[in-house]
Amino acid sequence: MDAFSKLIYTLSKLPGIGEKSATRLAYYILKQDAEYATELSSAIVEAKQKIGLCTLCLNFSDQTVCRTCSDQSRDQGLICVVERPADVTAFEQSGNFKGIYHVLHGVLSPLDGVGPEELKIRELFTRTQKPLREIILAMNPSVEGDATALYLSRLLKPLGLKISRLAHGLPVGGMIEYTDRQTLGRALQYRVEVTS
Amino acid sequence: MDAFSKLIYTLSKLPGIGEKSATRLAYYILKQDAEYATELSSAIVEAKQKIGLCTLCLNFSDQTVCRTCSDQSRDQGLICVVERPADVTAFEQSGNFKGIYHVLHGVLSPLDGVGPEELKIRELFTRTQKPLREIILAMNPSVEGDATALYLSRLLKPLGLKISRLAHGLPVGGMIEYTDRQTLGRALQYRVEVTS
Repeated sequence: MDAFSKLIYTLSKLPGIGEKSATRLAYYILKQDAEYATELSSAIVEAKQKIGLCTLCLNFSDQTVCRTCSDQSRDQGLICVVERPADVTAFEQSGNFKGIYHVLHGVLSPLDGVGPEELKIRELFTRTQKPLREIILAMNPSVEGDATALYLSRLLKPLGLKISRLAHGLPVGGMIEYTDRQTLGRALQYRVEVTS
Repeated sequence: MDAFSKLIYTLSKLPGIGEKSATRLAYYILKQDAEYATELSSAIVEAKQKIGLCTLCLNFSDQTVCRTCSDQSRDQGLICVVERPADVTAFEQSGNFKGIYHVLHGVLSPLDGVGPEELKIRELFTRTQKPLREIILAMNPSVEGDATALYLSRLLKPLGLKISRLAHGLPVGGMIEYTDRQTLGRALQYRVEVTS
């Protein structure tokens, strides 16, 4: 395989990048100064070398204990359990959460061969040995996400902690007319009393 | 800037990759084995190091003279002038062209500061010193493409060669009902007589 085909082939392994996009990216890289190729290439290697998993929350981090876990101004008694590192970013950007996280790195999915052993569940239990107040199960609202949350809530129940999950309902800015049946059903089911 | 932000920043310079896509790609790269990061990183550097411009047609090539230009089974008297290397790939995939190419690396665009000096026009003239039969001006059907084709056709006219351009008309599989006015206008204007 020549250098050009090899670049396209390697780029097309990236998620959402097909052969056509990979070709476009490859042409772009060739058109830039050699500096950009070096910069991109070393950013990839450096990120992979320097970034590992935080020993506590298992999110990606370039430190043994990540900034969030070592931040004593955050509520260390409140753990939000998420599927993937990208979910942590989403919560951080929402700016509403002042607790800490735990990344499972997946959801239970028997068909794909993902059982409890493949997820970072044991590590979550280790963390419950410290004083904890509440665990939020923030899985995605999918079949696998719901099953994982149910599994975890049963496992965690004997610990006597408060276990919660995210609210389901209408997305902000959404319209009732275009909301799918299930979301609308849940918005009704979990309706909140208006107190004056 | 930490290693993760730097990777996202560098990836987001790629065309069509915004900050969100770059983050998704970065997470993917971190999730894979270190092997993939090394492979991608070296594919980028190697491609940039090994691939230069063919001295004749100025398409990207890992040889001084590219495979197409050195292929004596191709019609060396017929040059198809295109805007970008990706256009060569498109023609090669159509499988209908047996001549050779010349890549301009752009189109005339005074507003972007691209004049004749910025394009590989002088190199095209050097090639006309060898016996040539025809030059096809295969620019994109855009304002800049049309202007570039017009400019080149005037420059090339004194050489006494046959100068042609691509046909405009209905795309194969297209529907008259949904064809834009200009394309339909050209399809009418350049209609072809049916001979029985």
